[in-house]
Formats: sequence, C-alpha cells, structure tokens
Amino acid sequence: MKRRKLRELGIEVGKLPTGKKNCITDVEGVLVGHVTLIEDLEGCETVRTGVTAILPHGRNLFREKVIAASYVINGFGKTTGLIQLDELGQIESPIMLTNTFGVPATTQGTLEYMLKQNPEIGDTTGTINIVVGECNDSYLNSIRLLPIKPRHAIEAIVKANKNQVEEGAVGAGTGMVCFGYKGGIGSSSRTVKIGSGSFTVGCLVLSNFGKREEFRHWQYENSKPEPEYMTDGSIMIVLATDAPLSDRGLKRIAKRATIGLGRTGSHVSHGSGDIVIAFSTAITIDHTTEHVILTKQELREDTLVYNQLFQAVAEVTEEAILNSLTMSKTTTGRQGRIVEELPYNFTRAMRGESSESK
Amino acid sequence: MKRRKLRELGIEVGKLPTGKKNCITDVEGVLVGHVTLIEDLEGCETVRTGVTAILPHGRNLFREKVIAASYVINGFGKTTGLIQLDELGQIESPIMLTNTFGVPATTQGTLEYMLKQNPEIGDTTGTINIVVGECNDSYLNSIRLLPIKPRHAIEAIVKANKNQVEEGAVGAGTGMVCFGYKGGIGSSSRTVKIGSGSFTVGCLVLSNFGKREEFRHWQYENSKPEPEYMTDGSIMIVLATDAPLSDRGLKRIAKRATIGLGRTGSHVSHGSGDIVIAFSTAITIDHTTEHVILTKQELREDTLVYNQLFQAVAEVTEEAILNSLTMSKTTTGRQGRIVEELPYNFTRAMRGESSESK
Amino acid sequence: MKRRKLRELGIEVGKLPTGKKNCITDVEGVLVGHVTLIEDLEGCETVRTGVTAILPHGRNLFREKVIAASYVINGFGKTTGLIQLDELGQIESPIMLTNTFGVPATTQGTLEYMLKQNPEIGDTTGTINIVVGECNDSYLNSIRLLPIKPRHAIEAIVKANKNQVEEGAVGAGTGMVCFGYKGGIGSSSRTVKIGSGSFTVGCLVLSNFGKREEFRHWQYENSKPEPEYMTDGSIMIVLATDAPLSDRGLKRIAKRATIGLGRTGSHVSHGSGDIVIAFSTAITIDHTTEHVILTKQELREDTLVYNQLFQAVAEVTEEAILNSLTMSKTTTGRQGRIVEELPYNFTRAMRGESSESK
Amino acid sequence: MKRRKLRELGIEVGKLPTGKKNCITDVEGVLVGHVTLIEDLEGCETVRTGVTAILPHGRNLFREKVIAASYVINGFGKTTGLIQLDELGQIESPIMLTNTFGVPATTQGTLEYMLKQNPEIGDTTGTINIVVGECNDSYLNSIRLLPIKPRHAIEAIVKANKNQVEEGAVGAGTGMVCFGYKGGIGSSSRTVKIGSGSFTVGCLVLSNFGKREEFRHWQYENSKPEPEYMTDGSIMIVLATDAPLSDRGLKRIAKRATIGLGRTGSHVSHGSGDIVIAFSTAITIDHTTEHVILTKQELREDTLVYNQLFQAVAEVTEEAILNSLTMSKTTTGRQGRIVEELPYNFTRAMRGESSESK
Repeated sequence: MKRRKLRELGIEVGKLPTGKKNCITDVEGVLVGHVTLIEDLEGCETVRTGVTAILPHGRNLFREKVIAASYVINGFGKTTGLIQLDELGQIESPIMLTNTFGVPATTQGTLEYMLKQNPEIGDTTGTINIVVGECNDSYLNSIRLLPIKPRHAIEAIVKANKNQVEEGAVGAGTGMVCFGYKGGIGSSSRTVKIGSGSFTVGCLVLSNFGKREEFRHWQYENSKPEPEYMTDGSIMIVLATDAPLSDRGLKRIAKRATIGLGRTGSHVSHGSGDIVIAFSTAITIDHTTEHVILTKQELREDTLVYNQLFQAVAEVTEEAILNSLTMSKTTTGRQGRIVEELPYNFTRAMRGESSESK
Repeated sequence: MKRRKLRELGIEVGKLPTGKKNCITDVEGVLVGHVTLIEDLEGCETVRTGVTAILPHGRNLFREKVIAASYVINGFGKTTGLIQLDELGQIESPIMLTNTFGVPATTQGTLEYMLKQNPEIGDTTGTINIVVGECNDSYLNSIRLLPIKPRHAIEAIVKANKNQVEEGAVGAGTGMVCFGYKGGIGSSSRTVKIGSGSFTVGCLVLSNFGKREEFRHWQYENSKPEPEYMTDGSIMIVLATDAPLSDRGLKRIAKRATIGLGRTGSHVSHGSGDIVIAFSTAITIDHTTEHVILTKQELREDTLVYNQLFQAVAEVTEEAILNSLTMSKTTTGRQGRIVEELPYNFTRAMRGESSESK
Repeated sequence: MKRRKLRELGIEVGKLPTGKKNCITDVEGVLVGHVTLIEDLEGCETVRTGVTAILPHGRNLFREKVIAASYVINGFGKTTGLIQLDELGQIESPIMLTNTFGVPATTQGTLEYMLKQNPEIGDTTGTINIVVGECNDSYLNSIRLLPIKPRHAIEAIVKANKNQVEEGAVGAGTGMVCFGYKGGIGSSSRTVKIGSGSFTVGCLVLSNFGKREEFRHWQYENSKPEPEYMTDGSIMIVLATDAPLSDRGLKRIAKRATIGLGRTGSHVSHGSGDIVIAFSTAITIDHTTEHVILTKQELREDTLVYNQLFQAVAEVTEEAILNSLTMSKTTTGRQGRIVEELPYNFTRAMRGESSESK
Repeated sequence: MKRRKLRELGIEVGKLPTGKKNCITDVEGVLVGHVTLIEDLEGCETVRTGVTAILPHGRNLFREKVIAASYVINGFGKTTGLIQLDELGQIESPIMLTNTFGVPATTQGTLEYMLKQNPEIGDTTGTINIVVGECNDSYLNSIRLLPIKPRHAIEAIVKANKNQVEEGAVGAGTGMVCFGYKGGIGSSSRTVKIGSGSFTVGCLVLSNFGKREEFRHWQYENSKPEPEYMTDGSIMIVLATDAPLSDRGLKRIAKRATIGLGRTGSHVSHGSGDIVIAFSTAITIDHTTEHVILTKQELREDTLVYNQLFQAVAEVTEEAILNSLTMSKTTTGRQGRIVEELPYNFTRAMRGESSESK
C-alpha cells in the first residue's frame, strides 16, 4: 500500500502554510539525492542503508559557499565537518547523510567529487571541508560490513534534484527506526510572509530515535511488544531557508529544531547524536574575489518575521519527523528483524478523536 | 477563588511519579523564599514585583559549594553569575530571581548577605560569585522606578524554607505574564527509581513568555483580544536534583528543559532570556580543605536512570510552567492594565474533551 | 617621578605601527572616562579603587548599538552582560570596569544613566543590557566596604573623552596588582593598511594578574621577596576596532588576546577572570528602524589585512599590559601594604642588554 | 647530520623539570606509532606524508575509555570525532594524526581496527567514535593523490610503543612546514610535584604553521626569501597527563596550549586549524559495568599543583613546537620544492647572545 505524507492523512502540524511541495526543495535552489542499498547477504546479514545528499545549490559549492551554522542538541554522534562550519559560518560542500560507519567512505567520496570538480583544491588553493552526518542503522543493517563505498556518495550527489523529496525508507533512511516504527527520511516546509513576498524554511530529517512509549501522538497499542532495540537512537536535522540570515542567526534557527523534536516525544536520550545543520541560500560567498569588503544583506532579528522563522523551524521539524514515519514502509533486515511501519490509526488521536473508537 | 496546581485540576503531565509536594523542595535540603512587593503609586505607576531565593541547602553555601551548570536556551537576558558557574561547575551563593532592572540591587543584597556570613571573603580568601536571574515584568510593574532594593534580596534569603513552594503571582513572579495570562512562579518534581531508592528532580520556573495563540493546551477563546504586549517574554528555569551528576551531566540535564518549554507552546522568541540553572545536592565541595584529591561519586550516563532524569526534566519543566499559570490570580498593574488568570476550561482540552463542549 | 609608556622607554612590542596616541581612543569615536577613589579610613582600611567607562561612541549607545563579541579566556570572574552580548552580537551600553564587588553598584549606576537618557526603556520598548567587567583589588583596597556607588559609574561615563587615555593606577586600575608590581589601566593601538587607508585596533586592559616569577621580561631581582598575594589575579581586555567585522569575526579577534597575554608571562591561572570584550565602530545598528533587511559591510576573512588584525590584537594586548605596569606608580593600601611600581631596569633585558650590566 | 632536540642544543624552555624522555610517552602508558610515506611519483608529484597514532594506553581503548576534552583555538580544520568527545568527555579510540585529505582513510582504517578488536561494536553494543586530526601538507606532498590508505592507520596503531618518540619529518609530520622551515612532529614533557610523588604532562604536536617573519626566537636571516607558501598553516596539539582531571579540567588544560603556541610567534591565522586534544590516564571508564554509580578521583582545582599543570602545558607546547623544528631535516617535495631545516644559529638568540656574533 502506498504510504502518504501526514497532510495527505488529514493532519496538519502548526499554523504556518507549507511551501508548494511541503519539502526542503521548496527552498529555491536546494537539491536532494538518494542512493539506497538493499541486499540480502549470507547468513542473517543484510544491507539496508544508503546515502542522502543535500545540495544548497546546484552550482559549484566550493566556489560559491553558503552561510551556515550547526547546533548539537546531543553530541553522541560522529558527524564530521562542523568545526570549520562553525568557525567560518559557511558550508562549501554538499551535506551528506549516511550510517554511522559510512561516514569515512562518504567523506572520501564527497572529497573525491569535489577534488575532481575543483582542480585547484590542495594545489593552488587550500583544502575543502566536507560535512557528513549520520545515524546508526545497525538494527536492520549489517553496519559492521561497511557496505557504504565512496562511489555511493558521488552517486547521491550526481542524482540530486529539485523534485519532491523521496521520503521514508530511502537513501540514508533505508534502515532507520523511529519510535519503534520504521523511520528514515522526512521533509516539510513552511513559508512566512514578508511584505509582498515570503521566505521559505525547509527541513529534511534522518529520524532514528525514540521508543514506542515516548511517541506522544499515539499510544493505544502500547501493549504490543516493542522491538528490543538496544541503543538510544539519533536524528539528523537539516534546515534550509532563503531568508538572509547571518551564521549567528542560523545558529539561533538551528536551536529551535529542539522544540519540534521534543513535541514528537523525544527526551534527547544520552546515546543520541541529535545534530542540526542550517544554511541560507540568500547569498553566496565567492571562494575568490577582488573585493576585500563584502556587502551582505541580513534580516533584522527584532522583527515579526524573524520570530515566525523560529515558529516555522519548530513546525517543519515536527512535521518532517512525522512524515518520516508516515512515509516509511515495513522493512525487514538483519537477523530477520522486522520493523513495522507506523499504522495510520494514530491520526485519529491527532485529530482529537478517541483512540479507542478506531 | 483559590487557585490550584494542575494536578488538583485532574491533569497529569508525563508519566513519572511526582515527589511528595510536587515542587522543588522535594529535593532534600533545597529551600525557597519569596519577597513580594505590591504597591500602588501616584499616577498610573504600580509596584508588582519581588525577589525569589532558591538555596541548594540551608548551610553556608560559600563554604559548601554545590556542583552546577547553566544552559542558555536564548540569551536575550541579563542573568549574572554564569561565567564562573560554567568555568568551575559550581554554585556558591543562593540562586536569586527578580525583575530585569532588579538584578543589580539583588546582586548587591545577596553579596552583602554573603559578606556578612563569611568575613573571610575579600579579606583572607578570594571573592564570591552571585547568581541572579530575571524576567521583565514591565507590563504590570513600574520597572523604571527600580523598586527592588538590596534588603529585599536579603529578606528572601532569610525567609527561605523547605515547605511547599508558594506559586503563582508571588516573589519574582508577582508581575509576570505567560501566554497572555498571569504567570510567575511554578514548581513541580519527579522521582526516578534506582535500586531500592530513588532520585528526585525538582523545578522552579519564573514564567514570563508566550502569546495566547502559542499556548498549545487551549485555544478556544482565541477570539478574545490579547493584551498588546510589546516585547517577547522570558523564562528562568531552575532545576535541582539529588542525583550525583557532574557539571557536564548537569549541563546535559539543563538542555532538556527546552523540551518541556517547547511542549507548552514556546518557540523561544528572539527577545526572550530563556535560561536554565541546574544543580545537584548529592555532594558539596568544601571551600577549603586539606585534601588535594577529591573523591566524587557520579551517576553513570549510559544507564536507564540517567535517561529517566532527562525525561523527568522535560516533565517537571512543562508542569512547572503550567502550575505557574494555574496558580496565578488575575492581577492589575501599571497603567490600569489587567492580566487575567488562566481559566480552568483549558483542562477539558487537556483531558481530550472537545473544547467546544465546555 | 613621572611614569612613562613603554615606547617612551625605548621599547617596541611587535612590528605594526601604533596609532597617533597609542591608545584605544585612536579608534575614531571611542571615549574613555575614569573615576578614581582614594581615601584612608579608620583602622587599616583604605579605599583604592575606581570605575573606568569605555564608550564605543559618544552618541546614544542604546539607540545606536555596535557589533560586539566576548571571549572568556578563564571564567573565574563576575563580569555581567555577556549572555545578551553573545546572543545578539551587540553592545548597547558603555563598557564599565571596576572592582569585583563594585559590579552591582556600577551596573546600577549605568542602568540609571541609560534609563534617564532613554525614557522609552522599560516603558514602551524592552530592557537594556549593561556590560560591566571587574578585577579583585582587595590586596590594596578595602573591597568588603563596598566603596563603589552607582554615582561613580555615572561620573565615569560623563567624564569619558577622546583624549590620550590616562593609564596606570587610575580608575578601575587604582588598586590593581600585576606580576607583583603595581598594575592597572594600560592601553595601546595598532594600524593595519588597507588600500590607501587603514584600520585601527585599540586595546584597554585592567591588569591584575601574575606573580613576579612569571614576568617574562625581567627576572633579575628574583631574590627580592614578592608580596604574599593570596589569590590568583585577573585581567579585563577591551578591544576596539574600526574594521567592519561581524560578531563572529570579533569573537575570533577577541580570542587572539590570549596570545598577547601569554607573551607577558601569564599562564591564565585557575583563579583568574580573564575576559575579552571586542567591538567594532564601523557600523551601528539602530534600535528602531523601518528597515526589515539590513545591509552590512564586512571585511572578508581570508585577506592579509584580516590576519594582520589578529597580529595587531596580540601586539596591543601585550603592550597595553606592559603600559599598565610602566605607567603605574608605587601605591600603598590596606593594612599598610605597599605595591611597588615596576622598575625601569627591565627595559635593558627587553633591549637584549645583559641585565647585570645595569 | 643528526638533528637534535632543543635541550641537546643547550636551550631550556620554562622552569619545570622535564620527564625522563622529554616526550609524551613519559606519561605512563601512552604509546605513539608513526607510518611515514615517502615516494617520488611521475611528473613533479611526490608522496611526503604519513600517519601518527597516539594511544592513551595499550589495552582495549573502547572497553577502557579515558577522560578527555578538546579545545578549538581556531577551527579552519577537518579534525573529526570532537562532537562526541566533548559531549561525553571521553576518548574510546586511538588519536590519529594525518594530512587533511587523509582523514577519511585514516578514520576508515582506525574504525576497521576497532571493529576487528571489538566484535560487539555495531552488533550487540553501540557504535564507536574515532578521533582524527590533520594538517595540510600540500606544499611538499601531493595531497590530491590521496596517498593515505586505511591500512596505514592500522599500521601506525600496531607500531605504537612507549619508546622515545621519533620527532621531526616523520609520520604525519613528514610533509609539514613550520615558520617557513621544516616542521612536523615534536614532543616534550614536564613533571610537577605533588606530595612525595609527581604528575607528568606530555605533549605531541604536529606543527604546520607560521611564516618566517613570525618566528620569535630568530630573525637574523630575514633577508633570505621565504618559500611562497600560499595558505595559512595549522597545528594539532595532543596533551596527555596522569593527573586525575575531570573533562572540564582537561578542557581548561587544553586552552592553555594557546599560551605556548603564541610564545613561538603564532597569531593563530585565519586559515589555521589549531586544535588541542587532552586526555588523562589517571582513571579509565569501563564500557560496561555492573556499577551505576562511579567513584572518581579528581585533583582539586584551587591548588598550587593545578596551576603548575597550566604552566606545564604552556611549557610543553612551546618546547614541543621547537623540537618539531630542531628535529626536522631539510626535505624536498612536490614540484621540486625544498623546505630547509631550521639552522641551529637561532639558539644563540635564545641564549641571549647577539645574533650578529655568530
């Protein structure tokens, strides 16, 4: 049966209007690509993993950097590239998502792609900073077998496009588990009005956290035994906007993702790597230029629209997480484990209907 | 009419059991004192403010310091004392709450109290770090008149006791406004089991944030015009526990307060000073000692009980905020302004009853 | 005997040229004012303290804010106002320096000054963030007697001017001790070329740290007994520049002050409050405006001039500290203590001459 | 001609005594291993790079973690693993150093080593956090050709031993350049007395920063043209101690490395990745245990010995950097470039002799 986004099930999160596609590619220029790896190996080993690439724009990211920030909600994670991102307030590569042990291979592949695209890197100019985030999909995926190879990262970048983002058990989300149900990739967007125009905030999550009993929107089947999942999970949250924000402003934006995450039921457990990366497409910074002084446009922070961006972040994060659940299909994996898709009954609870009356 | 705590209205937040009094003084040793200033002055000026003191224990705090941490959810605030608190991971004074412009007078009074108690400070030993948090009560209180004096801080400290905490429009909460209703002081507690015993987490908030339309638990009266409140509000969140945590552990604890705050409806607006201070009463650090090596006990972080402390923080923060609303009475103030108390109808919505059926 | 700046003694620090006055007021618009309190009281008590005000410009700082950042080298200090400064990247008040226990009174006085100047604060607009730094002058000054009053802060602001900064045992520096010699206020500046113009970096320090044996530039009199000074000292470092930097850029600038501090001999001891505040006068941010989008100019960070600003910070910090020593005179204080001025013999060592050959 | 450590040239840095070998392996249990890759390829391409592994102890690091902290002096760098290191205050893998583009391969190799050693990782327990630091050796090394492979990381770990550390152009230091001379690996140690025993602080640096004109200890040959080196360099600083410090204490320790770095002449340039990792071998934390409560010993921070640890860090960092210069030999590399070794004449200047009188 086809899985649907939350809104197709009649549920709205928050009050702000969504963008046209209700996903991160509503932010003009942003591209997303997935590589999904599914294979059954000998014994009880299975490959259920992948790579997802988010490109702030489709041009040369090293030569036209975007302003960015990160925020670590909880740091039990292996995301790489945040030191330079935070020091300079810039991103100069695709943002890659994969499984925990796929980080080095994904970094390697992305590096190779960027080196090929930019022959001056490491020769006549400096180095490049690659940003890769991760969650641990070892419940369904044979993560120790290191199935992610550098070529998968390159493939995800090449496939990136501006279409409706594929959600659910796809790309880096292939093997993820959220609230004891099948999670993975989810996306959502919001628009806020400014004058006669508007700004868009988009979110893409890789959801892999939470126990069934923590899910706030639905608990009537609590009797059902939860898969005994040993480790705390994680979430990667990528936020995009076309609002002209400074890196400090983007860090403030990034912190608000915690609100949306908490509203789904997470308490940000000890063992979770809950990490937010936020960027703005409003302006780009040339790698080289004649100009010593830059002229930047920035949204004032004491404005109504700025507070609405905060609200938008809370809303898109919550809805993207829920979309990762409503779009994911039941998946079998390592050691014959089955992670069920979230039944749509929970929408009754969200509509305020008595959950018993299903 | 007597105002009640949320649980007296039949509503429970979260799943963990509360402590005996369901307030921060359930954490053994913690004391709370309030000084409430209410006065009508000439013209339309009114005093509606106060000071609240939270003492981690009733002994000499300078000589027996407690382990502590802070976390700034949003830093549009004037809290003082966090630099040293964060560097050393310790608190050595009462934690004081007051209005924004009352911070220097409250710091001064607390300093005078501590100097009198400890004649060696500034003479034969070093200085002392005073911690004072604040929210802006200028909607109801004539904050420009600087009604808080150093003696009020001393009085709040002297009055501190281990009884059930007074909540609502009292102490520092006298003039605060939350979600467009009367807010102020709220408190709650949780216990988590460990072996045959338990740890307690207590929370005291000074709530002063949010618009009516943001309150997630009740919106049926949206048509009613909200007081046109010009500035974003703030919240101070003080967390106490008897669990033996390191300062790093307490910072992790403090970050989880964001979850509870977000669940009430806050998006942590630009102009808010949303600040968390967390301390543990499990061990004290002597100001002077013969011992060069300390022996500390610490709760392991990869334990079930540790994750439950995170859950407890989310629950107590949310419930303390709601208690600050359900316990506050309608208050009139500056320029004849009236801030209404939160009607109890909202509990129907929280119980899942249709809000139309009131 | 008249005390002199280091360069008048024939010693240069670093390679970049100084500004005209070799002090922080070389940065166009910056004003400095001192209030010095010297009084001998009954018993062995003495007042040797004061207040120093640094104004980024002479207009209304609340209505025309400057971009700013702070950096805590070591946080055993009571500086107030940094939370909002860091959240917003702005300063909206004078930067005040005083003794540790003078912080609340100085904050109070500065607040009163700003409230009087801006009747809208706390009435029709929000609150104001006051920034006050401190060092502990209790070796010479009867700090427990709390001699600093709010009026002293106001007086320091009113007296602020763009002249050559008074240095040594003056203002907040009146009772400070550095490397076991009389320290206090020191200042220095540098210029770096950009195109046909230049940027200026100015520094003002309040020096109060270090043992004689740590002073790197002179140790031949080590046999001489050092005053038994019980607590680790501190330093406040204020950096001003007219280069157009973002708050993130200013934080990077601020971190480089550690270099200059370390070169004098400091190891940033446990008990020191070593805190840097940096601001740019290049642009101001209006408190209120019609414009939702700001246009800001910013110096690119991958430029030669940007690295020279880093070098300038190291140089001005080191030289300002040395100036605080060469400009201070021998001072007597509490309990008949005498803190000697730094003898000028040390310049022989700095010139590479054998120190025995004095 | 054999290259020597600074002390063999008659120069001492600082005042504290060194450990027996004056290198990081003076800290009991610490092991260091190098893999050096030197190869001349077709055209003007050359391999001049390597991997260096620092093991806090020789047992299973995943099962017996050490307490640790990091500090980013300047974040233009690609070090990986610091997010989890900072969240948990622990290291559970070897600390690896390599060239900038060797980070993913080195992470991959170290991961493979740890997975083989611990079959439970990614299966019945969670994941593992690998820490890899880097500098950019592209002036001498054909970094774009990605000569580092995963096997080199494994080899460096396997070769790690407690002997006198090899210094200079070896391991990760093979192709590095410092102050325009050949830099690379340097190490030093100090001991501080406590009671009848002592604590040791060891440092290993990978030096790759600075221009000739910035080197503070020697400038008489300034006329000589410096290699036109286009990008700002970096430094990795690894600190080890057997003093029982908390992760917060170790972060304070790590910050003091800036002092030693600055004393050599660095201004921490914009393009540098100057990163410190500090760990204590005093206690280990078991990955699994029956105990929910840990008992930890910790050095009090208000002690003389604690301040001496700060001093020790400044001294070992400065001396390790100087050792990286005095131990490195002239090296030729990519495009026929030659980086000369630092001539020993500079020691005359350090001894206070007139540099003209060589």
